[in-house]
Amino acid sequence: MSISVNSSDRVCENGIQHVELLPATNDVHGGVIVDMKDAMDAQHFLTLLRASISQWRREGKKGVWIKLPIELVNLVETAVKEGFRYHHAEPHYLMLVYWIPETTNTLPANASHRVSVGAIVVNDKKEMLVVQEKSGRFQGTGVWKIPTGVVDEGEDIFKAAVREVKEETGIDAEFLEVLAFRQSHKSFFEKSDLSFVCMLHPQTFDIEKQELEIEAAKWMPLEEYAAQPVTQTHALFKYILELGLAKLDRDYAGFSPLHITSVFDDKLSFLYLNRAGDAVPKFS
Amino acid sequence: MSISVNSSDRVCENGIQHVELLPATNDVHGGVIVDMKDAMDAQHFLTLLRASISQWRREGKKGVWIKLPIELVNLVETAVKEGFRYHHAEPHYLMLVYWIPETTNTLPANASHRVSVGAIVVNDKKEMLVVQEKSGRFQGTGVWKIPTGVVDEGEDIFKAAVREVKEETGIDAEFLEVLAFRQSHKSFFEKSDLSFVCMLHPQTFDIEKQELEIEAAKWMPLEEYAAQPVTQTHALFKYILELGLAKLDRDYAGFSPLHITSVFDDKLSFLYLNRAGDAVPKFS
Repeated sequence: MSISVNSSDRVCENGIQHVELLPATNDVHGGVIVDMKDAMDAQHFLTLLRASISQWRREGKKGVWIKLPIELVNLVETAVKEGFRYHHAEPHYLMLVYWIPETTNTLPANASHRVSVGAIVVNDKKEMLVVQEKSGRFQGTGVWKIPTGVVDEGEDIFKAAVREVKEETGIDAEFLEVLAFRQSHKSFFEKSDLSFVCMLHPQTFDIEKQELEIEAAKWMPLEEYAAQPVTQTHALFKYILELGLAKLDRDYAGFSPLHITSVFDDKLSFLYLNRAGDAVPKFS
Repeated sequence: MSISVNSSDRVCENGIQHVELLPATNDVHGGVIVDMKDAMDAQHFLTLLRASISQWRREGKKGVWIKLPIELVNLVETAVKEGFRYHHAEPHYLMLVYWIPETTNTLPANASHRVSVGAIVVNDKKEMLVVQEKSGRFQGTGVWKIPTGVVDEGEDIFKAAVREVKEETGIDAEFLEVLAFRQSHKSFFEKSDLSFVCMLHPQTFDIEKQELEIEAAKWMPLEEYAAQPVTQTHALFKYILELGLAKLDRDYAGFSPLHITSVFDDKLSFLYLNRAGDAVPKFS
């Protein structure tokens, strides 16, 4: 008995033809995800890829995701020449995607925003926690600013604010509210920024500054912060002061987080809303 | 006269050696950006890349960015083997980066969040603008939901809310406030979502639904929306109703946008904050 097989096919004892495919798992949107881990030469990858796409097309699959660790960079060109497009990338991997059906693709958009936090922390003596940074725009300028930082992958905004304050100054603080947020564009290439101005209440008072990023940290009287030239000339410094004062002196209402179950997948997430006063939604 | 030159060097008439480098522009952080446009074979690219890195190292440059359109996928492997890492990718290009100095790299983090909007639009008859979608989770379920959509690259949140309402239903509406926002994680692979629940006031009332995405659109009495089974069982449907009622009936205070000049680069951006009532910060 003779069966014509190509290099990706295997023949079992009973003569049934088995085609070798890329290792894939199904996603919940009718697509498949290939998480490549082992080294492979480009020719072998091409053979498996073509056989796999044929199979998935027969099965009515939609999006095909291939995650290539940077060590498998030798396979990128092959995937692109077979019609894959880039979806997103992180330092150590590249995610490629291919849409099989004739219909309009409904692939999720890529991440478009970086998210950061700034933390207003004021003690009972009306002193604000401020730092001087070792790098960045204000390096060597003598400018005192509030602790700021980028929200880590998968991190909640309110936890990022608490973490940044602890990391930069050693101060433990309780998260109170998001007082405001700012959206700005083209922060790096075509990507945008969302920066959340948060109010925290300090629970400890002895500063231990971080060596790596922070030149100096201290409690500064609010009048002194207000008197800095940069607070007079730079809008965001002024707004941060005014937001802090509005919260401290006039009970300004920002947004605070409420733990909810996501509508779509039963995952827990946080809804940030105005929870002060009488107008607040009553959730059972 | 004989001078040893490699393939990337040129010798002018006066015998001065000129090294051919990749086309680059300086960025404001002491780095360089290479925006590759023309086809090039990988060997020639390697020669230019090595000569360029040497030159930039002598000049004290820090981050080196290389933007490769997907048509130049043949150069990706070369760049990675020379020490470049992925930074981010969009369907049609890949951004690679290399940090020259010995010091800790201060390259900006990649975008981590996708941003979307949901629009609560209620008319004077206390009817809410709702749609049924042609694809997605609620396809064919009979569920009526508010118009939602992803914020485009470089688009302001409040503009996205107005645009989505117009696109899906043909209704012109004025943006009022962000009533709340939700942060959720691992929405696609490791990336997170920030979804802004917005309140808009309708300015027109005749619905013209979009053919591509929308199965049906109508004005629905709030009691009817409340009575949908999904509003009873799904937290976000319930929260959207409660937020809308809090705004309509009890003057709930959300965040509204204020045009400000960015502290860093004089670019205009929007600060979203609570601008209702007496506690509001007074910005001159």
